[in-house]
Amino acid sequence: MCAESLQFGASSALLTDLYQLTMLQSYYRHGMLQTAVFEFFVRRLPANRPFLVAAGLEHLLDYLEELRFDTEELQWLSKQPQFHADFIDWLSEFRFTGDVWAVPEGTVVFAEEPLVRVVAPLPEAQLVESRLINLIQFPTLIATKAARCRLAAPGKVLVDFGFRRAHGAEAGLLAARAAYIAGFQGTATVEAGRLYGIPIYGTMAHSFIQAHPDEMLAFRNFATSNPGPVVLLLDTYDTEQAAEKVIHLAKELAVQGISVHGVRIDSGDLLDHARRVRKILDDGGLQQTRIFASGSLDEYALSELEKNRAPIDGYGIGSRLDTSADLPYLDCAYKLQEYAGRPCRKRSEGKATWPGRKQIFRRFQNGLLAGDSISLEDAPQPGQPLLELVMRGGRRTRPPVPLAELRESAARNLAQLPPAFCQLETDQRYPVEISEAIRNLAQQCDQQTLAGQSGMR
Amino acid sequence: MCAESLQFGASSALLTDLYQLTMLQSYYRHGMLQTAVFEFFVRRLPANRPFLVAAGLEHLLDYLEELRFDTEELQWLSKQPQFHADFIDWLSEFRFTGDVWAVPEGTVVFAEEPLVRVVAPLPEAQLVESRLINLIQFPTLIATKAARCRLAAPGKVLVDFGFRRAHGAEAGLLAARAAYIAGFQGTATVEAGRLYGIPIYGTMAHSFIQAHPDEMLAFRNFATSNPGPVVLLLDTYDTEQAAEKVIHLAKELAVQGISVHGVRIDSGDLLDHARRVRKILDDGGLQQTRIFASGSLDEYALSELEKNRAPIDGYGIGSRLDTSADLPYLDCAYKLQEYAGRPCRKRSEGKATWPGRKQIFRRFQNGLLAGDSISLEDAPQPGQPLLELVMRGGRRTRPPVPLAELRESAARNLAQLPPAFCQLETDQRYPVEISEAIRNLAQQCDQQTLAGQSGMR
Repeated sequence: MCAESLQFGASSALLTDLYQLTMLQSYYRHGMLQTAVFEFFVRRLPANRPFLVAAGLEHLLDYLEELRFDTEELQWLSKQPQFHADFIDWLSEFRFTGDVWAVPEGTVVFAEEPLVRVVAPLPEAQLVESRLINLIQFPTLIATKAARCRLAAPGKVLVDFGFRRAHGAEAGLLAARAAYIAGFQGTATVEAGRLYGIPIYGTMAHSFIQAHPDEMLAFRNFATSNPGPVVLLLDTYDTEQAAEKVIHLAKELAVQGISVHGVRIDSGDLLDHARRVRKILDDGGLQQTRIFASGSLDEYALSELEKNRAPIDGYGIGSRLDTSADLPYLDCAYKLQEYAGRPCRKRSEGKATWPGRKQIFRRFQNGLLAGDSISLEDAPQPGQPLLELVMRGGRRTRPPVPLAELRESAARNLAQLPPAFCQLETDQRYPVEISEAIRNLAQQCDQQTLAGQSGMR
Repeated sequence: MCAESLQFGASSALLTDLYQLTMLQSYYRHGMLQTAVFEFFVRRLPANRPFLVAAGLEHLLDYLEELRFDTEELQWLSKQPQFHADFIDWLSEFRFTGDVWAVPEGTVVFAEEPLVRVVAPLPEAQLVESRLINLIQFPTLIATKAARCRLAAPGKVLVDFGFRRAHGAEAGLLAARAAYIAGFQGTATVEAGRLYGIPIYGTMAHSFIQAHPDEMLAFRNFATSNPGPVVLLLDTYDTEQAAEKVIHLAKELAVQGISVHGVRIDSGDLLDHARRVRKILDDGGLQQTRIFASGSLDEYALSELEKNRAPIDGYGIGSRLDTSADLPYLDCAYKLQEYAGRPCRKRSEGKATWPGRKQIFRRFQNGLLAGDSISLEDAPQPGQPLLELVMRGGRRTRPPVPLAELRESAARNLAQLPPAFCQLETDQRYPVEISEAIRNLAQQCDQQTLAGQSGMR
């Protein structure tokens, strides 16, 4: 008696905006099937995001490889008043056959830099816009937030706790993966463990304590029934009293060969509680028992705790990570830069774009990022080009990159960030130049447009 | 060559946190299978959310009806170090067999009020926590944001444009549905049209204009190839010049029996452009042609435009709606209120909860909401009870409620809001009393806990 299914195909061609389909109908009708170049980039970054960590590419490539309209979808479309029958027929053969250039996941990038370039027949490059943005923006947002947490608490265990308040299940899964790439040790989300092989972490909930007639029994029951690492939650009633109970329990458990791996504090003044609990544990001989903290954490709270040398070994970071709470979306766009060999440029107020097929060239100095140039692909600048050909003719040019490699690459990238950009906020701008070649092309473009406009009637 | 699938089952039992499974293992081991009562509620609401609109229930009920561990999932779990083989066997039979009480979707609710109550054997009520919050929090967040937009622009066409910047595809679909319930006319997301029957809307993108050698040709091509309503995008190059072109084109199209339904403005000062464009259209005889606006809109921008009597007929609202940008998550919880007949209460600092099986009783005055009492189910107060039994023994008590009905119910609820709470922000608190019966139970609870604590060794 299911109402309205949530079972969408992750690569369904209907995960798009209606206007993509009506535009396609026009392209199809008027034979506008030549090669288009679109690029995805972030327009501007606020002071609390001095850099971004690119993520989401492998899922985008999955989507592009598997993209099609299935029979049921085509039937549904054919009943809508917006479409002609011959167009629906044409859609039944629709596949993505284009090339994709992209910055690898885990790479640090900045505003205006193209993260993905799609080169494909116009209808293909157009239709994929909605899901492409959907699959790149959010993971990039979360990898960036997670990287900020990583920088704020170096050496500490960081775990994604955000599934419940993520925006739906796909968001929870994408966030777990993006955070792992950016340097988190793992996630609490079991399905992310199964799908992506990310290490899964967990402790216990307050309800577990509450369901037992007393806290001690709850601790004991948990410890004796779970072969995994035992982490006990202290703050259901009184944090320090609970820590005292852990001391007693640990002695009892030692006889059975069970050790208390850690405790978790989830409310109140985490710094203060952590200090008191650390002392209780140390005094009770549990120097090896770790302290984990959670509850409204983000890079700001982490930074504060670390600055005060909180005796906390690991953090569970939830809602504020999985929703990127202080910046829940990026001012990003996927824009047409060239069609049928003609460079294109939008000039809307405050939203003008640079035309042409672009490449990012990155310079380094003493192992640190020293400045980027955005230029045209065929007008290279000094430095390392960042965009790579990852898909040719609709197929990946290489197998999916293992998550472990992406993780290493992100760590390497973060280690190359100049100190100013490792701060939580900065007014400093990382130097990103727009090359002479692009500026010339833009000028040429404006002249063409003016000519086209005046000759329009 | 798919990397890491995004193909999760929307009702997969692995869409949960690891600690749910380790707690379940302990419950299973120690025979703690008696009835538990959990409630989902929002702890606090900030000044910019004077009320909430409940949403997400039907998908939750789908999830609960379909919940199970499939063979592949069980095999994966059995390879994890956290679990004993007999527990995995037990999970293979796992189903949700409980009762669910809930406030209907589309109902206005406030902080501390239980939106959902689950009454089920402890392991079942516990396991579902993560996905339950995931499926109720986000739709409620979006229905609320959408209702605020609805109140800010009464009588105007409101369309969800947010899929691309929603947090994944599920978020985009859930947002389209929640916004529709709260009074939006439709969505741009095609898959939401197919899955839920929500009306779909669309215009054209800047890339469509740019792909043509001139804007006039782009407009003409679009109008002549799409049988649906023609809406032309004005701001790719120069908004007012484009409006002039529409006048010329409309005459040409009239001969073919095609009318220009509307135009869209997506950048710059929307109020100013709308006024100029309205004048151009009116002077050119296109009084019937509608003006639609989009670009960084939310209830604040809408309110400002409406206050200035902007000649705008409809709004496309994207990123700020689908991410609830000024409040991307709710301070909500799903808490154990009773186990095996014993009321339970958490006393963590700043996160204490009220025990027992609760019901909301709502009073009205002159057709407006006049105050709510939260009391125990068996200690009724004057007023209309809001929580209904929607699932018994793991099956719905009634067929899924059609979206049209939920939409009407939300409209009725919003019409009953006292004026103070229709404002964008207010420091006024809607009166929600906690009954004497609950306070007494809480006291009783604390005494029990103290007894349990002191007797623990």
